[in-house]
Amino acid sequence: MKKLLNDPADVVVEALAGMAAAHPDRLDVDLEHKLVLRAGGPVQGKVALVSGGGSGHEPMHGGYVGTGMLHAACCGEVFTSPVPDQILAATQAVDGGAGVLHIVKNYTGDIMNFEMAAEMAAEGGGAQVASVVTDDDVAVQDSAYTTGRRGVGVTVLLEKIVGAAAEEGRSLEECLALAQKVNGQGRSMGMALTSCTVPAAGKPTFELGEDEMELGIGIHGEAGRARVPLAPAREIAEDLLGPVVADLGLARGESVIAMVNGMGGTPLLELYLMYNEVHRILAAAGVTVARNLVGNYITSLEMAGCSVTLLRADDELVRLWDAPVDTPGLRWGV
Amino acid sequence: MKKLLNDPADVVVEALAGMAAAHPDRLDVDLEHKLVLRAGGPVQGKVALVSGGGSGHEPMHGGYVGTGMLHAACCGEVFTSPVPDQILAATQAVDGGAGVLHIVKNYTGDIMNFEMAAEMAAEGGGAQVASVVTDDDVAVQDSAYTTGRRGVGVTVLLEKIVGAAAEEGRSLEECLALAQKVNGQGRSMGMALTSCTVPAAGKPTFELGEDEMELGIGIHGEAGRARVPLAPAREIAEDLLGPVVADLGLARGESVIAMVNGMGGTPLLELYLMYNEVHRILAAAGVTVARNLVGNYITSLEMAGCSVTLLRADDELVRLWDAPVDTPGLRWGV
Repeated sequence: MKKLLNDPADVVVEALAGMAAAHPDRLDVDLEHKLVLRAGGPVQGKVALVSGGGSGHEPMHGGYVGTGMLHAACCGEVFTSPVPDQILAATQAVDGGAGVLHIVKNYTGDIMNFEMAAEMAAEGGGAQVASVVTDDDVAVQDSAYTTGRRGVGVTVLLEKIVGAAAEEGRSLEECLALAQKVNGQGRSMGMALTSCTVPAAGKPTFELGEDEMELGIGIHGEAGRARVPLAPAREIAEDLLGPVVADLGLARGESVIAMVNGMGGTPLLELYLMYNEVHRILAAAGVTVARNLVGNYITSLEMAGCSVTLLRADDELVRLWDAPVDTPGLRWGV
Repeated sequence: MKKLLNDPADVVVEALAGMAAAHPDRLDVDLEHKLVLRAGGPVQGKVALVSGGGSGHEPMHGGYVGTGMLHAACCGEVFTSPVPDQILAATQAVDGGAGVLHIVKNYTGDIMNFEMAAEMAAEGGGAQVASVVTDDDVAVQDSAYTTGRRGVGVTVLLEKIVGAAAEEGRSLEECLALAQKVNGQGRSMGMALTSCTVPAAGKPTFELGEDEMELGIGIHGEAGRARVPLAPAREIAEDLLGPVVADLGLARGESVIAMVNGMGGTPLLELYLMYNEVHRILAAAGVTVARNLVGNYITSLEMAGCSVTLLRADDELVRLWDAPVDTPGLRWGV
């Protein structure tokens, strides 16, 4: 295993210490609970957004904490759900009296632990919690760690858009409805050229032959739809977009927010090349890209590969997308 | 070779087409000359900044074109210098009458071609051109493609800082002097855990054993100082920072702008972990980090590894650093 680390057991906490050192003006990091929090404590009278999950997907979620996006991220060990105590601590730390929205990717462990934390938080008149579960991955119906579709790229877009809505002062009920709308209008599919290595495991999660790729890969290396021969980028783009566009039922004249996301080990040069293919295919289908992201936003350690996320856009979503955001991972307007 | 591409010969132009599609409001892309230009044509009465070099280091340089940073980037083939015609076209396209500053990394091919383009531009009363050559890499004195030190990470910081100065309306002479100051006050050193594969070559540039790393690696995989056994992150940080701090002659009480840069294939989790080590070492030496960057800023395709750049800071440099910048790769204040 070739990685920049000390003891594999300390990777997450040492990386969080690095985030604290790098962003002292913007973030508070609770190393005991492995939380990334906005500096300055809870925002009174506004809904707070809490997300989290296993580490290894950076910048998600810790890199999305800040004005206009998340209030806290709960960081599990690499590819391991955060525990209820962490999530409870985050929920209590950010509650400003207007309720807390949990943003949970559809993985069985995440769902269970966020639910338990929400119940604990509500006990004795504590924070009011609502939850949205993302399940945008069209690749597989059930998978190794999930019943139903997995939650992947749309989570990033949701955190940005609902973060802007919370900043505007919308109620918990309104933020939840918006979050459900975003999840309902977003779909993703990914692929891998290589595996990645979880530090604690010390060896690749899976093996792929020199001429193979995995279509429909999960963000922890879970099996996807098919292991197929390596193909040109234009074919890969078709393979990823086809199911996404079909499942969304996108029609000529519609517009989307599109993300071409790197899995961690793919150069930006290749991601822009993939975006060129995605843009071309959508243009041919009469679909306009209203906004886009090209880069590493929801990763799987050093896995090579990419995913494509499309979110059916409307004026409200684009306006919230354009609102100022000030996080280590997404930053504009400030 | 496992990459997201079509024909290896078309990688750069297809990636540039992707940049054009992704950033139509911000960038003009000249596919014939492989140039990334600010949208809207030359800025009249202000100095224009042109940089460039081989592709494969994204987001550098194309991703640094925009308000507050570069006016144009000339993109060579992967790890190959841009040719004089490209650089001339860029220089002429951005000249707003106040002169053009060429920002050139110290590689023999780059130097030669930028010099030739500057001469061609000056002929017949064309653009007035000044040039700064970056040579911040303390690892080796001469190397495979360089006489003297290589130009690496400080180039990113220089483009940001001098870009802000040009935006303020400083003269070509003043921009040049500032650029020379930044280069003179910046030092870098990098390391690699793995090689990378140039698409046209189809196989790794070099081989590293399972327990080896290359200290002082160049951004094209050129040999560095030493091939040594893999070490913990804290030792690697000492190995990189030691020569940088010594060469800069940093003293207790000084402050720096620090960049922990990923080579392309290293997860952000590990880069933050490395930043934790860098911050700790500097704190122990009494050196304050005034500003920092942690992420992929000057890469070597999918190489795993990192580099550290320190720039001795002062109030002027920090003020220019904080000025608004609006590029795909660096964005704040707007």
